[in-house]
Amino acid sequence: MFTKQSARRYPLFLATLLLYCWPLAHAQTDPLPSWNSTGPKQTIMNFVQRVTRHGSPDFVPADQRIATFDNDGTLWVEQPMYVQLAFIIDRVHQLAPKHPAWKTTQPFKGVLEGDMKAVAATGEKGLMQLMAATHTGMSVDEFQKIVTDWLATAQHPRFKRTYTQCVYQPMLELLAYLRASGFKTYIVSGGGVEFMRPWTERIYGVPPEQVVGSSVKTKFETINGQPQLMRLPEINFIDDKEGKPVGINQYIGRRPIAAFGNSDGDQQMLEWTTAGSGPRLALLVHHTDAAREYAYDRQSSMGRLDKALDEAHAKGWIVVDMKNDWKTVFPPQH
Amino acid sequence: MFTKQSARRYPLFLATLLLYCWPLAHAQTDPLPSWNSTGPKQTIMNFVQRVTRHGSPDFVPADQRIATFDNDGTLWVEQPMYVQLAFIIDRVHQLAPKHPAWKTTQPFKGVLEGDMKAVAATGEKGLMQLMAATHTGMSVDEFQKIVTDWLATAQHPRFKRTYTQCVYQPMLELLAYLRASGFKTYIVSGGGVEFMRPWTERIYGVPPEQVVGSSVKTKFETINGQPQLMRLPEINFIDDKEGKPVGINQYIGRRPIAAFGNSDGDQQMLEWTTAGSGPRLALLVHHTDAAREYAYDRQSSMGRLDKALDEAHAKGWIVVDMKNDWKTVFPPQH
Repeated sequence: MFTKQSARRYPLFLATLLLYCWPLAHAQTDPLPSWNSTGPKQTIMNFVQRVTRHGSPDFVPADQRIATFDNDGTLWVEQPMYVQLAFIIDRVHQLAPKHPAWKTTQPFKGVLEGDMKAVAATGEKGLMQLMAATHTGMSVDEFQKIVTDWLATAQHPRFKRTYTQCVYQPMLELLAYLRASGFKTYIVSGGGVEFMRPWTERIYGVPPEQVVGSSVKTKFETINGQPQLMRLPEINFIDDKEGKPVGINQYIGRRPIAAFGNSDGDQQMLEWTTAGSGPRLALLVHHTDAAREYAYDRQSSMGRLDKALDEAHAKGWIVVDMKNDWKTVFPPQH
Repeated sequence: MFTKQSARRYPLFLATLLLYCWPLAHAQTDPLPSWNSTGPKQTIMNFVQRVTRHGSPDFVPADQRIATFDNDGTLWVEQPMYVQLAFIIDRVHQLAPKHPAWKTTQPFKGVLEGDMKAVAATGEKGLMQLMAATHTGMSVDEFQKIVTDWLATAQHPRFKRTYTQCVYQPMLELLAYLRASGFKTYIVSGGGVEFMRPWTERIYGVPPEQVVGSSVKTKFETINGQPQLMRLPEINFIDDKEGKPVGINQYIGRRPIAAFGNSDGDQQMLEWTTAGSGPRLALLVHHTDAAREYAYDRQSSMGRLDKALDEAHAKGWIVVDMKNDWKTVFPPQH
């Protein structure tokens, strides 16, 4: 009952309530619950507060709060091989019955026999042949369906969950936290743009128009009276290393104020981001957790982190130590 | 004074107020006041109501409400020549003192002497030379400043106002109306993407990341310790005709549900847009107003509207008759 007496005491009652509940309320709204309270979390939250607080000398208007994220190894797992490479291998197996010559021709023979050394020996030319055979010759709509169907069932060999469940929970929280703080979050990945767009909105909350990636050329054709965009066996753009700032400028047309990566492929994106004036945030995920995920850096053929790690130390970019800075790695399985 | 008596009558008073003021309020909030109440306005407004009304069989979720607009001749004037061509001519004059050989070498000689026939005779090669000399060899930041400075003072030869004031008031209203209805508005233009991005947000409310256009290649370089993106004299992408659906897919990754153009260069964009399932809107601005702007279509070398006009009539796309459908053409001068 709210009596006349309690009404008179109301201001005091409210103040007491606030005093007791504030720490709880605050804890409940921690935007990064899967991050330990170590340096990276503090630096990220300080940065976001500086650029979003009106009157702060570092305030950045919302339309300029562009944040770019690498995908492989930054948002989802890239070991024991890039997910897109697992897709290529599966597709070669699926398509092989229609291509009897593949049994005796590299690089297809190597893929079918699991002889990755033979595949690697075919070099860039071999990789392009695999790309062409699995990623081109169909319309963009058809390719979208192929990717969606594959991702619905294909499983990670170690974690026995679909690849879209092998995403990093702390990074999902970071994406959501930045968006809640008025940032526009982009993916800027060396992976194929049309390999990502069918699912990034559902998994990351990043819509197709905010995904930048590598691409093949496409051609507009009218087939049986229906306009189609056909995927051609020709590289259009490689969105990796020096290509990342090029892609950012080409697709977004603004310089990010925050960039997140995990390998030497992200070095130029972080350089480009931090070279702008005003407050900037650069972060590398360092895979140090063999128990929960993987531990790799300077020697890895996938996601090598070597020069960018040196530059991060020299320039004070955040280096996330996955083992110590993350409470959990993957989201709860559903 | 709000007396006890008036308080008792308040509900009736409110109802009366509403009854009398509703039509006025409604008229005041006409989202397209510069459009006459002719067919195009009705069709546009019906379409927007159908796709935005919850429960409508044609309802489209906000994230899929993508609208693409051509720029030259659709949002701003393209006669007597494309604005970017006027920029090239002015830049050749500005840069000529540093290039004495231009006085005797085509296509520069022709530009300097105002002999456009001689320029035209140099064909595509000559145009590329003019592009290279005026659009490349500097960083993307430097080019942005050059464009911004030029647009601040250059005037349209007939209307004696800056080019960014030679935009179409009815189309500004249409852009704002669509955004207020949850659409994401994009520019998809044959013009240079970096020629548009410095000013489209201020003039059209379209931010840089929602501008798709033609581009030159750029290269990431570190110059005196500073990362730079340098503009190279090499075409990267031509966003015109068949290139428009390609550009839309590459940059946006979704099919628009509404597309707006004015020339044969927009035909494939309108075909691609209307070939999707569900409600679609396609509109062509037909320049029929020699008194207030220009009258041109099938014979014009800039913004030719010929095949697309036939297709519009055959398929029932909206054709705006500028003279009869628009109350005003340009915004009030400030």
